[in-house]
Amino acid sequence: MTSKKLVNSVAGCADDALAGLVACNPSLQLLQGHRVALRSDLDSLKGRVALLSGGGSGHEPAHAGFIGKGMLTGVIAGAVFTSPAVGSILAAIRAVAQAGTVGTLLIVKNYTGDRLNFGLAREQARAEGIPVEMVVVGDDSAFTVLKKAGRRGLCGTVLIHKVAGALAEAGVGLEEITDRVSVVAKAMGTLGVSLSSCSVPGSKPTFELAADEVELGLGIHGEAGVRRIKMAPADEIVALMLDHMTSSSNASHVPVQPGSSVVLMVNNLGGLSFLELGIIADAAVRSLEGRGVKIARALVGTFMSALEMPGISLTLLLVDEPLLKLIDAETTASAWPNMAKVWVTGRKRSRAAPTEPLAAPDSTAAAGAASKQTVLVLERVCTTLLGLEEHLNALDRAAGDGDCGSTHSRAARAIQGWLKEGPPPASPAQLLSKLSFLLLEKMGGSSGALYGLFLTAAAQPLKAKTDLPAWSAAMDAGLAAMQKYGKAAPGDRTMLDSLWAAGQELQAWRSPGANLLQILTKAVKSAEAAAEATKNMEAGAGRASYISSARLDQPDPGAVAAAAILRAILEVLQSQGV
Amino acid sequence: MTSKKLVNSVAGCADDALAGLVACNPSLQLLQGHRVALRSDLDSLKGRVALLSGGGSGHEPAHAGFIGKGMLTGVIAGAVFTSPAVGSILAAIRAVAQAGTVGTLLIVKNYTGDRLNFGLAREQARAEGIPVEMVVVGDDSAFTVLKKAGRRGLCGTVLIHKVAGALAEAGVGLEEITDRVSVVAKAMGTLGVSLSSCSVPGSKPTFELAADEVELGLGIHGEAGVRRIKMAPADEIVALMLDHMTSSSNASHVPVQPGSSVVLMVNNLGGLSFLELGIIADAAVRSLEGRGVKIARALVGTFMSALEMPGISLTLLLVDEPLLKLIDAETTASAWPNMAKVWVTGRKRSRAAPTEPLAAPDSTAAAGAASKQTVLVLERVCTTLLGLEEHLNALDRAAGDGDCGSTHSRAARAIQGWLKEGPPPASPAQLLSKLSFLLLEKMGGSSGALYGLFLTAAAQPLKAKTDLPAWSAAMDAGLAAMQKYGKAAPGDRTMLDSLWAAGQELQAWRSPGANLLQILTKAVKSAEAAAEATKNMEAGAGRASYISSARLDQPDPGAVAAAAILRAILEVLQSQGV
Repeated sequence: MTSKKLVNSVAGCADDALAGLVACNPSLQLLQGHRVALRSDLDSLKGRVALLSGGGSGHEPAHAGFIGKGMLTGVIAGAVFTSPAVGSILAAIRAVAQAGTVGTLLIVKNYTGDRLNFGLAREQARAEGIPVEMVVVGDDSAFTVLKKAGRRGLCGTVLIHKVAGALAEAGVGLEEITDRVSVVAKAMGTLGVSLSSCSVPGSKPTFELAADEVELGLGIHGEAGVRRIKMAPADEIVALMLDHMTSSSNASHVPVQPGSSVVLMVNNLGGLSFLELGIIADAAVRSLEGRGVKIARALVGTFMSALEMPGISLTLLLVDEPLLKLIDAETTASAWPNMAKVWVTGRKRSRAAPTEPLAAPDSTAAAGAASKQTVLVLERVCTTLLGLEEHLNALDRAAGDGDCGSTHSRAARAIQGWLKEGPPPASPAQLLSKLSFLLLEKMGGSSGALYGLFLTAAAQPLKAKTDLPAWSAAMDAGLAAMQKYGKAAPGDRTMLDSLWAAGQELQAWRSPGANLLQILTKAVKSAEAAAEATKNMEAGAGRASYISSARLDQPDPGAVAAAAILRAILEVLQSQGV
Repeated sequence: MTSKKLVNSVAGCADDALAGLVACNPSLQLLQGHRVALRSDLDSLKGRVALLSGGGSGHEPAHAGFIGKGMLTGVIAGAVFTSPAVGSILAAIRAVAQAGTVGTLLIVKNYTGDRLNFGLAREQARAEGIPVEMVVVGDDSAFTVLKKAGRRGLCGTVLIHKVAGALAEAGVGLEEITDRVSVVAKAMGTLGVSLSSCSVPGSKPTFELAADEVELGLGIHGEAGVRRIKMAPADEIVALMLDHMTSSSNASHVPVQPGSSVVLMVNNLGGLSFLELGIIADAAVRSLEGRGVKIARALVGTFMSALEMPGISLTLLLVDEPLLKLIDAETTASAWPNMAKVWVTGRKRSRAAPTEPLAAPDSTAAAGAASKQTVLVLERVCTTLLGLEEHLNALDRAAGDGDCGSTHSRAARAIQGWLKEGPPPASPAQLLSKLSFLLLEKMGGSSGALYGLFLTAAAQPLKAKTDLPAWSAAMDAGLAAMQKYGKAAPGDRTMLDSLWAAGQELQAWRSPGANLLQILTKAVKSAEAAAEATKNMEAGAGRASYISSARLDQPDPGAVAAAAILRAILEVLQSQGV
């Protein structure tokens, strides 16, 4: 089975991808007849050193993403995981030479094909009288015994692009740039790990891993790594990687020690989620700092990928202040991240939580009778909801996930527990606010948030006054908030239906001399009728809206619960004879 | 089977990922006790409007990657694909208020949970006297018939972060920012497509797709899309997406028409290779321009992901010049890309290939006899190699991929064809250069590149002189280039072994009065002995270096071929009696 890919043709992959990058970045241009991208402002580089890099495609955003002022002058791309053509490399060298640059540095990852093809183009260009130097980057720290072929070029190459780019932009000459980046290239190490392999367009995955294995020390061409390890927590895998990369018994290690200053790169090899990338970055920072290493800068992102490989590589570069200045220098390269010029280590990573506003003093008289009545109302609401648990769950099973009764019971038990802690606030505004926080925290789900919203908004008009018009305004404010954020309207088969019906009746409280109980009685009856009427409604919001209306022949449990709450309040007030 | 992930614990994913992002970005700080990240320079925002966004985790780099000067002030993150806690949203609002900001705009993606939780925190903050506005972004263009819940918030939200950030940075007030971004939010559309689903840490993939299907119109929480389509070339899929997004029969379309100016976002949903992302970007630019749409800016990268989903979304935002200025405004947000402030459409995307240097006039006399001798030598080399094809292939089957003879035959046939086109250059330097280009192009592989390198380098000393010392220098230059770029040394069981042995003997040509044929005869014998000796060597470079030396009991075919070439040259020169 070949892999599924969003491509036009296997043969055209590398051309199309480079064309897309150039099309979307007006600072770049293709070189006609070649798979080469160059800065479109080549003429501004007269008298400066040009920097060319490249290699096989499949490592995007490398290399073309690093073209720009302060980084590369251009890149030459091969087919996927294949070295670029000598003729194209030579064409790129000639193009930058003809634009008036004074010499070219080729930055090449250490692979035989790349060395040969860039090397050959270099020899041919030199035969034409163009000054060309070449630096071969080998930052791989996987192999503990050095291979004759040397260390492979991996993600650290991007740091060489950056350092060389800063030097070239500063007007440094070809020889000096070559010498300086050669030194920098020896001061770094990279190691990769992956959860599985990748597949070249038109081909199968390059290797297979068991569900509990991860591959360690792999390259960037889908090749298997130096060993397989058992799946482990991210912290352990990162610690193992850093041990391997920095151990002096590893011939390809980077000599990072306590007190060393490093630039850290956390590179997505392609298909790993950025969530995991962040987790790995966190583990790497903690592990390095735990070893006494000082992290100067940390770059996290996709820099040098291996198609869609779901893995990461870590790169460590030993730095001093002059080198850091080059890392920090400005660049317009699209794939170089915005990065603060501030040390990672030693920075305070959290700030104290804000102070909570002092609760306003309870300005309403804490009348014993009023407080007692509040307790009675709340207790009745709670017993009512607990008694309805099974009925509400049954109604909900027909239209949702069957937990509406349980959710309301959770709220009821939370209120009961809270009442045991002491008397409720006597101020209605504070009472509703407290209930809002309580339901939000303990009831949970959308119902908790909606009741929380209702109560928070309803509390506001009751801050100034607590007469009947204020209570009607509170009801309206609560309904408005519920509609605004919940996006339900009356008739959508939700809890809003019964509350809305009640609210309409409670408008009568705003008239002078209105009778509390008479109007509340009408409101409760209206709410109950509205709840019953939801059985004929199509769901317009909430979870039930995904269910065909033909299957909905019972009333909405949320609407039933809200009506029951209102009846519980009414019955207590009636029994108290308010 | 739950998914394999690089995490420490399922429960800690969101915290660890946010901690990693903050650790690596010294411009950010966490708010203690909350899953909140804020700019660390909050105190510099006195008198300005604060911008807070957020939502479930799993969309990285959204939202914390967009915190910075010119973008967000902070974000509140929930668990993976889960709305953030109201208490944390409120804490973030209080923190920015206590730092002296004059009001807060909440930028919320349109999901019920986010609307409710941000809405509730807003109501609570307003109850505390903090001015808070909220804009709900719904840029989804998947649903052709509008749902009551409205369009989902997708990748376009990042553009709202940018526009609001630029306005806030410019000192615009809360009401005006709210009004302006509300207008912008209505002028965009987003549509996604994916090759498969993603999986929440600890869970299975959220849906399954056949090998020939892609999912169209999906959200960013692993949910399935509006329909499945058959796999097709990238161009067709992109055309279908743009048709769907811009069709006036789609109630959620973005009204892009011929002549419209847009910002295009090509967003990696997480696990797609950047190679494919570039291909899609290319297709999108071509398709839009083919429709007469003018692309002002194109952003390509990972902005709003759905964990590791291997797919993309396209976002189109209608823009005018004032809006473009806000998109272009400076920001320090780490995940906002470096982007040229230049229109994509109308830009010249390629430049002419460089001119090739004029061939130097053939300064050596084109002696008929010399030219004839060259032809005889080359013909003998070719027939020799063709005669060895099967033998070389057989030797190579023991140590490599069995094509060494075929490769050399390909070279021989190329030279034969070239000789038919006309007489070879009489100048040895030009002859070797021509042969270099020919072998590079027609022989292919590492052998072609190595012979190309050898000949290119060997040609240089022959430019000035063509006496015997110059020919020895040519041999040495060729050997040096081969070693330098090929990384093989004598004794590594490669073609270099026989050439090197010959080169050592040819040093004698540098002595005054040296005899051409005597020394060349010794050199050929030495080369043949060296080729034979490779059978006892361990491979130190090239493909055979990956094979255990126990399996290598035949001479290296490359070394055998090189020795045979030298003998062919010798025999012709002997027969010509030079």
